[in-house]
Amino acid sequence: MAIAAKIQGFMESSSWIRKMFETGVQLKQQYGPENVFDFSLGNPSVPPPPEFYTALEETVKEQPPNKHGYMPNAGYPQVREEMARLVSETQGVTLTAGDLLMTVGAGGALNVVLKTLCNPGEEVLAMVPYFVEYRFYADNHGATLTLAETNRDFSLNIEAIEAALTPRTAVVIINSPNNPSGAVYSAESLAALGSLLERKSNEFGRVIHLVSDEPYRSIVYDGIDVPSVFSHYTDSIVVTSFSKELSIAGERIGYIAVHPEITDHDAAVDGMILCNRILGYVNAPALMQRVVARLRGINVDVEEYRRKRDLLCDGLEEIGFEFSRPRGTFYLMLPAPDGDDIEFARRLQEEKVLVVPGRGFGLPGYCRVSYAVPDETITGSMKGFRAAWESYRSGS
Amino acid sequence: MAIAAKIQGFMESSSWIRKMFETGVQLKQQYGPENVFDFSLGNPSVPPPPEFYTALEETVKEQPPNKHGYMPNAGYPQVREEMARLVSETQGVTLTAGDLLMTVGAGGALNVVLKTLCNPGEEVLAMVPYFVEYRFYADNHGATLTLAETNRDFSLNIEAIEAALTPRTAVVIINSPNNPSGAVYSAESLAALGSLLERKSNEFGRVIHLVSDEPYRSIVYDGIDVPSVFSHYTDSIVVTSFSKELSIAGERIGYIAVHPEITDHDAAVDGMILCNRILGYVNAPALMQRVVARLRGINVDVEEYRRKRDLLCDGLEEIGFEFSRPRGTFYLMLPAPDGDDIEFARRLQEEKVLVVPGRGFGLPGYCRVSYAVPDETITGSMKGFRAAWESYRSGS
Repeated sequence: MAIAAKIQGFMESSSWIRKMFETGVQLKQQYGPENVFDFSLGNPSVPPPPEFYTALEETVKEQPPNKHGYMPNAGYPQVREEMARLVSETQGVTLTAGDLLMTVGAGGALNVVLKTLCNPGEEVLAMVPYFVEYRFYADNHGATLTLAETNRDFSLNIEAIEAALTPRTAVVIINSPNNPSGAVYSAESLAALGSLLERKSNEFGRVIHLVSDEPYRSIVYDGIDVPSVFSHYTDSIVVTSFSKELSIAGERIGYIAVHPEITDHDAAVDGMILCNRILGYVNAPALMQRVVARLRGINVDVEEYRRKRDLLCDGLEEIGFEFSRPRGTFYLMLPAPDGDDIEFARRLQEEKVLVVPGRGFGLPGYCRVSYAVPDETITGSMKGFRAAWESYRSGS
Repeated sequence: MAIAAKIQGFMESSSWIRKMFETGVQLKQQYGPENVFDFSLGNPSVPPPPEFYTALEETVKEQPPNKHGYMPNAGYPQVREEMARLVSETQGVTLTAGDLLMTVGAGGALNVVLKTLCNPGEEVLAMVPYFVEYRFYADNHGATLTLAETNRDFSLNIEAIEAALTPRTAVVIINSPNNPSGAVYSAESLAALGSLLERKSNEFGRVIHLVSDEPYRSIVYDGIDVPSVFSHYTDSIVVTSFSKELSIAGERIGYIAVHPEITDHDAAVDGMILCNRILGYVNAPALMQRVVARLRGINVDVEEYRRKRDLLCDGLEEIGFEFSRPRGTFYLMLPAPDGDDIEFARRLQEEKVLVVPGRGFGLPGYCRVSYAVPDETITGSMKGFRAAWESYRSGS
């Protein structure tokens, strides 16, 4: 094989996902897309808010010098300032432009952070279930992903985290609101995590960084707030994107915010700016930097996602499914009736309902259902969910 | 130190560049920016063509569904098709959409290609002088950059390349028109390189890929054409961006074109699509994909750069400098009169003329002069260039 062995291996080990995807495409061709109920994707379904389009049009009309050219690798100074104000509000800790850098989405942000912080052979600890890309992102920089279980309601399990920390742990990464569980970690659990990391950093004689991946911060329901990570641990970093908050995932715009009191602050920020450059991102897309800087506090219509969540959850509960109702994001982890996620996904596929087996997220026994879909997909799928459910009851 | 040792090391070893940059900032503060002649940057100075602004405005007005959302990791199918037509024209080999993927600039493209093709411990061979980021890009994926000398006029030295190839060489990377030398490699030299790589691939029993980094393809002078790499070697890949051709370096939009007859074609393309995702780029910025697809064959006003080149080169020749007049890009490699590039840059800095020592590009003894600057910078600098030149003549 002419390509790198590792990449060839990645493709072979993910061939089941491709096969599932191809089966979905086949089903849509065979029965018509309106008769296949696809809950397998994570693409925001609610349109960008009207303010986004206005900001885009206004930004396109502006004519500052060198408008589409290079700017400093960290981003436009005025955009970094604006983001610092935004994060100061959401985190309750005062940041300045020098604590911020603009990135190519949260994916770019996470790679920049992990390259800056991890020595080869070190570990990145994530919570189960976890966003699938974390394993690749750690591996990109010679680190290994390790995992800690969460509680039954997907909340943080501090004992499990303590047991999973080792002297090689460079980074603990949390994702709240969580893709794929929809859980939002409480302030109490973040305080306990902060205390634990402080104690273990001292014990191991090295800083354990806490990275909070927050692209769903504004996609929460039932009046809850996502607690601040910065308030509970100084060696912490927030990464995020505007992909979900503004439904502009294709535009690749996000940022890194570094706690102003992080250990070796300037080396950390300068290292991230260097890594943003040498990883080939160079800078966050210029035009979109200016656009998002105009939109502080503007979000998609979260009520739309709330309505979809309830439409899905009410329907599934009526059938008999039991699960933790997500408090944020647009994902639900649905337990397989007999604990076998692959079999559950297969039976749903027979009913033309497409979901993703949880083992891809480190949690076999569950399937991920993304409800960023048209209402008709949800209502139309209920017959299929019921048939799959009953196939277990009847023992067939 | 709380950050990765490697990144700390990178920052320490590049501290002289930072110091130079800071001295430049100080000089501008002290004497006024109009009295400092800065040739140290590579930011296009010619504005985007009017067609770019029209295309941007029209694209913003379009309202296709999911306009700013995720698309396939390889890019929009219609954009890939349009780029395939473009590359088919410039390379003289017929490509289809399946040979193309859209990337976050050429920096993103190069990282995707190197991750897909290089096993850890393998080598990436570049020509001297080389674009500084190549060393980082190879290192990102566990590969090592090796170097081959070029001829006195910066043309390819096939014997030097043959001597530098080893059984561990996974990729040979060329950059023509070349940053920083301005050289354009001839069709004859590409044919010789293709033959050599074919022979050595057979000898070593592994495919040696040729990667052609071509962001300056359209920035050439004196009626020359940049020859096709695809015509001379099938295991070849072209990477590029629109940064220089459209003066939109900040927007991060480029692509990878894979030779339709490359060994293991589908694995190579699928591997690159996977790497585009797992390196955190995910996809090229959505809006700019649609914009560049409307602009096939449109370029900045190259005549402007040609005029600047001649203004600079005529002036320097009149003083007495001898050098290879660049045939493309907006860079000139100027030999240090006594062969010491650091000292030459220092003497020019005394005259408030800022250039970059060539050792950063693997070529001590030269300084890089970027003429993507206002005409006044060029005319204003001549007094300083003359004084530096005379300081060598007088032996002071």
